[in-house]
Amino acid sequence: MAKQFVYDENGEEISAWAESTDEVVEEARSELSEKGIDLEEEEIRERVRVIPSPTRIKSSPEDVLMDKRRRGGIEAAEVVESGMDVGLGTGSTTAWAIAAIGWKLESGELEDIRGVATSLQSHDLARELDIPLTDVDEFESLDVAIDGADQWDPENPHVVKGGGASHAREKLIDEMADRLVVATDDEKQSTPLSHPVPLSVLPESRNVAQSWVKEQGGDPQLRYAEKKDGPLFTANGNLIVDCDFGEIDDIEGRATDLARIPGAQEHGLFVDVVDDVIYGADDGVEHVEF
Amino acid sequence: MAKQFVYDENGEEISAWAESTDEVVEEARSELSEKGIDLEEEEIRERVRVIPSPTRIKSSPEDVLMDKRRRGGIEAAEVVESGMDVGLGTGSTTAWAIAAIGWKLESGELEDIRGVATSLQSHDLARELDIPLTDVDEFESLDVAIDGADQWDPENPHVVKGGGASHAREKLIDEMADRLVVATDDEKQSTPLSHPVPLSVLPESRNVAQSWVKEQGGDPQLRYAEKKDGPLFTANGNLIVDCDFGEIDDIEGRATDLARIPGAQEHGLFVDVVDDVIYGADDGVEHVEF
Repeated sequence: MAKQFVYDENGEEISAWAESTDEVVEEARSELSEKGIDLEEEEIRERVRVIPSPTRIKSSPEDVLMDKRRRGGIEAAEVVESGMDVGLGTGSTTAWAIAAIGWKLESGELEDIRGVATSLQSHDLARELDIPLTDVDEFESLDVAIDGADQWDPENPHVVKGGGASHAREKLIDEMADRLVVATDDEKQSTPLSHPVPLSVLPESRNVAQSWVKEQGGDPQLRYAEKKDGPLFTANGNLIVDCDFGEIDDIEGRATDLARIPGAQEHGLFVDVVDDVIYGADDGVEHVEF
Repeated sequence: MAKQFVYDENGEEISAWAESTDEVVEEARSELSEKGIDLEEEEIRERVRVIPSPTRIKSSPEDVLMDKRRRGGIEAAEVVESGMDVGLGTGSTTAWAIAAIGWKLESGELEDIRGVATSLQSHDLARELDIPLTDVDEFESLDVAIDGADQWDPENPHVVKGGGASHAREKLIDEMADRLVVATDDEKQSTPLSHPVPLSVLPESRNVAQSWVKEQGGDPQLRYAEKKDGPLFTANGNLIVDCDFGEIDDIEGRATDLARIPGAQEHGLFVDVVDDVIYGADDGVEHVEF
């Protein structure tokens, strides 16, 4: 994962990031010398910490380094208390929450945390931050899960997930948590939800599933990959059909219908499961409780 | 898959393509009327045929519609004779070979073909072309396989494959074939081969595999996805590590070393297996025999 250098000079933040510590030290030195600040190499290295890698979490740095996502994620980590078992979600805002949990463990502000990751990339990030990890099999329930959303509803405890293709394992872990905190940003809100619903399906069900979605009034699109020929595969060997229904008024009915599709493995509607939404906006971080 | 209209007006080709027949008829009508040609709707529809979909085979239309790939693929289909069992490879040039086999079956020029596809997208293309398909389990050998390459060597019967992440099943089918015809273009040639070698690995082997590649003198890069968070998964649930060794002088040794990596499932070096390379160039189609 990536590294970031942060230095506070009378309230002004000097920062630099790169994929390796050596590169970030180099960057930091040049930023500091521009401001006429002289720091020993050791002092610079002390201020370098692990952050979500913009190239590994999402495909574009802008998504991960967006300031409101960073602030929203760091704020969401405040719900974690010492001794808790924590679900670690997937996505660019959530990655910052995972980073903040790691920083708190390192500083001693938190202790005795056990994390369980919803995806390989969240697992790798947590591991690099030295967050103690264990497998989902170890738990029957979790104290809290922090996870992202493709779209959230400020009036209802539902979200659409699955843009990152990890929603099957996310749903397992989010449902196991006594409290689900969605870490997101203000641009992703909608009442009612209207984002196309990702539906993971067995590869051999791809055509049947698309017919059923059409019969249910949706517009299905098999998701194609980049950096690979043909369709995109999930970590579980399934394909993703993105199902556009426009505004989803009857979310319970829609969820039931999607679950009935033969070969459907998991859909991205998370119904009546959200406890909190903590979201970054241009002028701060907001909190909705359900 | 996509549709194409082709009309020959005194040696000048008038053509149009789109993802659906109705769209292509619309396009064709406008192209024809520009040239002052009057065709009945039925005559237009008769000239519409299935072609590889630029959005489904690869992520960019330029890759699939490149003229020399089209010509190379169509020429490669000439090796197929009636009664043959044929391996249908993956990639933009090969997709044109599959299309040409379908057209020949439709016209009666070919009959009694059984195809076996190396990937879901080749399967779907062949099905749309009404090429009779069966599973790889039905065969112990195949008469011929037509497949693409990421890089080929005009002096040796080796190729690098796996840019499209389908090389495991491709290797199975290409090795089963009595004759492997590589359909490609002139820009992909190199002596010796030097393209980074895709290595599919068990997800849990990703770190160990990268260490071994480094010890073997290569530069490994875990391939990250787009349209999905985190790493790219193959159809078999594996990850891809692209291993850059620079020029590969000892290809047998390299292949042996890669195969020894724990958790490695299949590498993209196809050694001493190529019988023919049929490749499109700007000024025609060339043929190399081994």
